[in-house]
Amino acid sequence: MGPKVRMEMHMNNREKLLNSLRQHLSDASRPLHGFVLLQGGQEQTRYDTDHLDLFRQESYFAYLFGVVHPGFYAAIDVATGDSILFAPRLPSDYAVWLGEIKPLSYFKEHYMVTTACFSDEIASVLHQHYQGAGKPLLFLLHGLNTDSNNFSEPAQFQGIDMFDKDLMTLHPILTECRVIKSELEIALIQYANDISSEAHVEVMRKTKVGMKEYQLESIFLHHTYMYGGCRHCSYTCICATGDNSAVLHYGHAAAPNDKTLEDGDMALFDMGAEYHFYGSDITCSFPVNGKFTSDQSLIYSAVLDAHNAVISAMKPGINWVDMHILAEKVILESLKRGHIILGDVDDMMAARLGAVFMPHGLGHFLGLDTHDPGGYLKDLERRKEPGLKALRTIRDLQEGMVITVEPGCYFIDALLLPAMNSPETSKFLNRETINKFKGFGGVRIESDVLVTATGCYNMTKCPRDIREIEAVMAGAPWPDKISTHVGNGLQI
Amino acid sequence: MGPKVRMEMHMNNREKLLNSLRQHLSDASRPLHGFVLLQGGQEQTRYDTDHLDLFRQESYFAYLFGVVHPGFYAAIDVATGDSILFAPRLPSDYAVWLGEIKPLSYFKEHYMVTTACFSDEIASVLHQHYQGAGKPLLFLLHGLNTDSNNFSEPAQFQGIDMFDKDLMTLHPILTECRVIKSELEIALIQYANDISSEAHVEVMRKTKVGMKEYQLESIFLHHTYMYGGCRHCSYTCICATGDNSAVLHYGHAAAPNDKTLEDGDMALFDMGAEYHFYGSDITCSFPVNGKFTSDQSLIYSAVLDAHNAVISAMKPGINWVDMHILAEKVILESLKRGHIILGDVDDMMAARLGAVFMPHGLGHFLGLDTHDPGGYLKDLERRKEPGLKALRTIRDLQEGMVITVEPGCYFIDALLLPAMNSPETSKFLNRETINKFKGFGGVRIESDVLVTATGCYNMTKCPRDIREIEAVMAGAPWPDKISTHVGNGLQI
Repeated sequence: MGPKVRMEMHMNNREKLLNSLRQHLSDASRPLHGFVLLQGGQEQTRYDTDHLDLFRQESYFAYLFGVVHPGFYAAIDVATGDSILFAPRLPSDYAVWLGEIKPLSYFKEHYMVTTACFSDEIASVLHQHYQGAGKPLLFLLHGLNTDSNNFSEPAQFQGIDMFDKDLMTLHPILTECRVIKSELEIALIQYANDISSEAHVEVMRKTKVGMKEYQLESIFLHHTYMYGGCRHCSYTCICATGDNSAVLHYGHAAAPNDKTLEDGDMALFDMGAEYHFYGSDITCSFPVNGKFTSDQSLIYSAVLDAHNAVISAMKPGINWVDMHILAEKVILESLKRGHIILGDVDDMMAARLGAVFMPHGLGHFLGLDTHDPGGYLKDLERRKEPGLKALRTIRDLQEGMVITVEPGCYFIDALLLPAMNSPETSKFLNRETINKFKGFGGVRIESDVLVTATGCYNMTKCPRDIREIEAVMAGAPWPDKISTHVGNGLQI
Repeated sequence: MGPKVRMEMHMNNREKLLNSLRQHLSDASRPLHGFVLLQGGQEQTRYDTDHLDLFRQESYFAYLFGVVHPGFYAAIDVATGDSILFAPRLPSDYAVWLGEIKPLSYFKEHYMVTTACFSDEIASVLHQHYQGAGKPLLFLLHGLNTDSNNFSEPAQFQGIDMFDKDLMTLHPILTECRVIKSELEIALIQYANDISSEAHVEVMRKTKVGMKEYQLESIFLHHTYMYGGCRHCSYTCICATGDNSAVLHYGHAAAPNDKTLEDGDMALFDMGAEYHFYGSDITCSFPVNGKFTSDQSLIYSAVLDAHNAVISAMKPGINWVDMHILAEKVILESLKRGHIILGDVDDMMAARLGAVFMPHGLGHFLGLDTHDPGGYLKDLERRKEPGLKALRTIRDLQEGMVITVEPGCYFIDALLLPAMNSPETSKFLNRETINKFKGFGGVRIESDVLVTATGCYNMTKCPRDIREIEAVMAGAPWPDKISTHVGNGLQI
């Protein structure tokens, strides 16, 4: 039923931001005055109707304040460190329709802030708190999300004209705070991983030829909610079998996990639960009938070797692009041994052949968002080459980062056919064997990995070896007595 | 796993609209030219991130075209009746990330329309089709949703300036089409009811003291998805126990079904699955320990008598306000017999005492939306009196309407305390007995009822009698051999 959520975590997050921001202001010889001001998410109705989708707080706001309610604002006084929550003033019939109208003292205590006020008082309260001269300065959140290419919307409220505004400073500093996880954040991500790993095992055990893909989605959702208290998933479940497993983001409304599982299909199930805003992102691949064929073993082992090689190499200072290239190389070497591709692997790498089989990036930061921000901070620029341009970060690893390691190998007609027709890549491709893999789909193995001081730790605890998977699907206990978790350096 | 969806239903819906619209234009001596043009829903990202919530089509668009994909437009040629789908032109890497790029012929055949084109061709295609003189006229969807007070957004596209626009005609005509359900629509609502009724029974059987409310939500969601193929619910599940059952729309993010079930609590579970856009809306109330106390029996029977009295009285021509008043009266009479209130029931009715115990309306249309539109068409005005002003419709019943019958009786401090202090209502309230019900919460019984030619039919098949509920919770089979479904007139 989920661990108790500790609001100290958000208090610590505010403290961390405050320290970073003050340091930044000092370094720039700017005064240590003003307010960080964030606007939380609002409930949304569906189109013109009164249908309300289940509210989920905006992630930056959740990071700093942990507030589950819609319609809030919040401020941090840069001078004093005071934190102020601004709650919406609710109409009296809220008590009839939506529940008790909680007093401001409730929010102050529950969320461990200095003060709680109403959101129609922002301008006056901040002016009262302000001890500097002239108009108080607001540090507002505005910046690019490099996964969506959307900009975060700065807070808006009645009376904002009575303030000076700084739109540039807050976003990179707050985003960088989110990149390095605290112990309390890691504990939540670990919990989301534990319950999701368990649910993946449950799914493996219940997978049978003849089922529909969405039935496995339902089993996953039920397990994580019923036994884990996870009401949200980190993302829409990808329950792909057969050819569908070559569609990287299968499972959406137009491809809704509705195929029937057939004997001989591989399954690629990419599913992760979220607990108190913190998520997990896990992919398991396995044969739906419980026994790997030699072709399935070949591709699966290629990906598992890449997954394990990356995790063995990860530690602070290692660059993520190098890890992507390592994964590609391990996969290409395996495919060469399996006679699927021919020639010199270094030549293949130079021709970017790896991106034909793994068109996505090796992994991404994970936290309050599945694609957690900060992958391209400090003016880092995306690479242009196939595969590498899909990387969601190209940074050096640092202790406290949580990043997914998710190599994959897919047989995607939309990529293989052009590659066969291209003079740069066609020479490497063994058409005869590749044709055998038509309809195979793909394999992805995805774990959530914490970078530690001396190495890394794999937070995901699913069966990974072929023998483990076959045993678990045949009913063997899991976790096994002997831990098989891949990691290196200090284990936490 | 859900019945096969028949696209003929949407073809019939278009035919029905076309007939109504042509009739309206003829009556107004207007030319039978122009195009109905609708814009379907777009996928939305969460805040600034690339997190995509699971897409659900806009309901008017779903009604006419049944399209599950985002980003579509669609038109109906008023002169010829031709239907045209406009699909988004997808980038080539869609095939890698999201799946096969389906040819236009797929959409034409699958959705049974006359033609399928790309959405960047709307202006030119409609001009080609147009056979009248001058600028072609577009009938765009714009009108008030009387539950949300939002207006539907008329379609927008490149080149719309090359058309004349009519924003007034379409909305009331199309909304009225939705009010009267066809046989194929009724079959889907019946299916959603069947699987949801079954899931409610499953929940009743698994409810135990010590569980968390959300675990029952999880059981419901799992049953309807796993065994019914229902990926969406009609609305966020309300799983209220104890005092929470007096919060009408409990279960949202700030009141997230997280109480532990205690011995002696009543449960009020309001949950309904959706199948191919068509929904259900069902509430069951029962004691979490499986045995009604005499106080629980008293309130439950008051509500059940009201539920049954309304269903026995429903038939075409009956006004819905009268049904609401009937329900109130039956409840007040029961409460009087239980010595909770004192005095003359007609005097209570005149003082609107019913609204203290049942502040919401008796029921609402149900279909593609949980609160299906059309409740106040033709310039009907909302009533002003407590309780009656909450009614989502005040119309006369007509054959083919599907409407929820959901009387309730709640002990809500925010209403009882003012009522005890008001000279109009305090005299009726027996403080001593009412105090006994502090923390009781409330009871609601909700069924989805189809108005037939001569009466009505209850589409919901849950245990309703106290003895049935106690038997089912103790493990008795359901449905029972002898049907106990309340209805009148012709059963379908």
